[in-house]
Amino acid sequence: MSNRFFQFDLLAQDGQARAGVFTTPHGDLHTPVFAPVGTQATVKAVTPAQLEEVGASLVLANTYHLYLRPGSQLIADLGGLHEYMQWPQPILTDSGGYQVFSLAGMRKIDEDGVTFKSYIDGSMHRFTPESATAIQEQLGADIIMAFDECAIPDQYDYSLKAMERTHRWAERCQAAHTRQDQALFGIVQGGIFPDLREKSARFISNLDFPGHAIGGLSVGESKTDMYRTIEFVNTILPVEKPRYLMGVGSPEDLIHGIQRGIDIFDCVLPTRLARHQAAMTFTGRLNLLNSVHTRDPRPIDETCVCYTCQHFSRAYLRHLIQAKEILAATLISIHNLHTLIELARRARQAILEGNFQPFATSFLENYKV
Amino acid sequence: MSNRFFQFDLLAQDGQARAGVFTTPHGDLHTPVFAPVGTQATVKAVTPAQLEEVGASLVLANTYHLYLRPGSQLIADLGGLHEYMQWPQPILTDSGGYQVFSLAGMRKIDEDGVTFKSYIDGSMHRFTPESATAIQEQLGADIIMAFDECAIPDQYDYSLKAMERTHRWAERCQAAHTRQDQALFGIVQGGIFPDLREKSARFISNLDFPGHAIGGLSVGESKTDMYRTIEFVNTILPVEKPRYLMGVGSPEDLIHGIQRGIDIFDCVLPTRLARHQAAMTFTGRLNLLNSVHTRDPRPIDETCVCYTCQHFSRAYLRHLIQAKEILAATLISIHNLHTLIELARRARQAILEGNFQPFATSFLENYKV
Repeated sequence: MSNRFFQFDLLAQDGQARAGVFTTPHGDLHTPVFAPVGTQATVKAVTPAQLEEVGASLVLANTYHLYLRPGSQLIADLGGLHEYMQWPQPILTDSGGYQVFSLAGMRKIDEDGVTFKSYIDGSMHRFTPESATAIQEQLGADIIMAFDECAIPDQYDYSLKAMERTHRWAERCQAAHTRQDQALFGIVQGGIFPDLREKSARFISNLDFPGHAIGGLSVGESKTDMYRTIEFVNTILPVEKPRYLMGVGSPEDLIHGIQRGIDIFDCVLPTRLARHQAAMTFTGRLNLLNSVHTRDPRPIDETCVCYTCQHFSRAYLRHLIQAKEILAATLISIHNLHTLIELARRARQAILEGNFQPFATSFLENYKV
Repeated sequence: MSNRFFQFDLLAQDGQARAGVFTTPHGDLHTPVFAPVGTQATVKAVTPAQLEEVGASLVLANTYHLYLRPGSQLIADLGGLHEYMQWPQPILTDSGGYQVFSLAGMRKIDEDGVTFKSYIDGSMHRFTPESATAIQEQLGADIIMAFDECAIPDQYDYSLKAMERTHRWAERCQAAHTRQDQALFGIVQGGIFPDLREKSARFISNLDFPGHAIGGLSVGESKTDMYRTIEFVNTILPVEKPRYLMGVGSPEDLIHGIQRGIDIFDCVLPTRLARHQAAMTFTGRLNLLNSVHTRDPRPIDETCVCYTCQHFSRAYLRHLIQAKEILAATLISIHNLHTLIELARRARQAILEGNFQPFATSFLENYKV
């Protein structure tokens, strides 16, 4: 699809890696792009102004959480998610499917949808493809997702059933979706099984969504299976539409994903690690609580231009962590987000310059997991 | 005192209220001024950049906390407090006296100093006038405080003894102090007793400190006693030196203090209230968790120009509080700090324009405690 709101232009391809521009009603996404996660309509511990400063463009918010609190109708009444959380650039919402299916013992699936218990007050709720789409229309993100069922990756029969249901639900989401200013992405499922993934990629591609997501990865399978599956699915998904790898975004996975043709990533890792004292760098992680940093005047990364690295020493950050000061989470989040966004930016630059392969090889060689 | 580092110029006086400029090595303070508190070398939940944006100039840090963690020698080795916490404008440190004397059951006072237990690891430590001064020299603030004993305000005998000790210690602090780029302020004690306050104000004034503080207030006495004491002490303290009212800073106390000749205030209230869902306005407090705000699209204060009020609705702030998001503390802190700093700025403007009295009357009439 390319309507007046959305357009995807591929600027360069280097192996399977691609650099593009995805136009949305709230601005252009320069792909590959990393999206910080703002589960409850806030990227934890940072302001929108700080998000802009680290170079964020796309931000993800979770339909499941926002539907339960404060409610999607309330957000719609207050002008939609962009206005509500004051993020003027593109927003993506997931469908709530992943969260609902993760509620072991608190949900019941049938062909029509899923009934589940609220984690907040125990009240009962129901998502169907139609309601998940309607809720996302109320939230008003630029990119919204089809309601899918994410299976446990190594169970063939379950993966098959979940995939088939995901396909039927994808058609229902498409039929239910009315807002032209939102791009509804279809999701490919099928666990780690090539025959299922092939079937799913073909089926979803045929529905002519404006973009595609690969779901059901980074949920417990091996890295080898994950990378193999991405590579395989992307041989089937059409080249001319954006590809989103859901919930994936460690530095090494970002590079492996880009190498295999992914355009969009999201992950809670940068902000979650930040709240647990871990700083991300281009060569690995740094536990800032380690006593080796007690008197270290250096920033987390001497080559980093983020606000945190331009101002604060490892010694100071360690003190903030020890003193349980909120500022620790804020400053490390700023740095970690900047690192992931900058990594995607550098990968994009390498693709545009035709040297992505040496860039990726050198990055992965220097990066200690 | 007016050495090459410090100078206090009174620009205008309106009744007892004064507007001035206090020059320090890290910039000018436009008095009356409100100082946010950064106990552990961070004003809780805000970055230095956000502090600058709310208009902060002077920031207070606590010697007691920083001595125990990360240690004043470490801060000195890393370039001093300004460099360590990245606050380029003036800093004030207290002497640690108030904190140490508040440790009921964990400290022992003698004529030479105080022995106390660390709240962090139970280890034993000792402050004397000399060591408290040396520690503050290591921290490197622009304004430092004499080591004093703060008595329970309505006990005459204890207040007398504590005052006399405070006087002897003030002389020892002065003798011990060596850094010309720090202004050591003397502290007036004496509880709520006019004869003691008079004695203390005369004694401390005679020591020719570059500035004076009024200690031992806002520690449980009545508002009437507090205002009366401020008014009385300021009839004795020399007009030409800055006056600092320690630990006081609710909006109404700020106005009452300015009215009675105070130039400098500090208080944890704006940031502490912010972490407990309360927004400060020019007419009173707002509990943002109140369900009345659930769908309210208005900012905390429609006339406020702070980042929070320029962007976020009460409905959104309430959601952040309910969702226990860190951003709530940050955004409400930004607003509360801005409000207190702006209140001091408006009072100053009123003094300069010669209409402080109507300004104060109108403020106090509209303000609901």
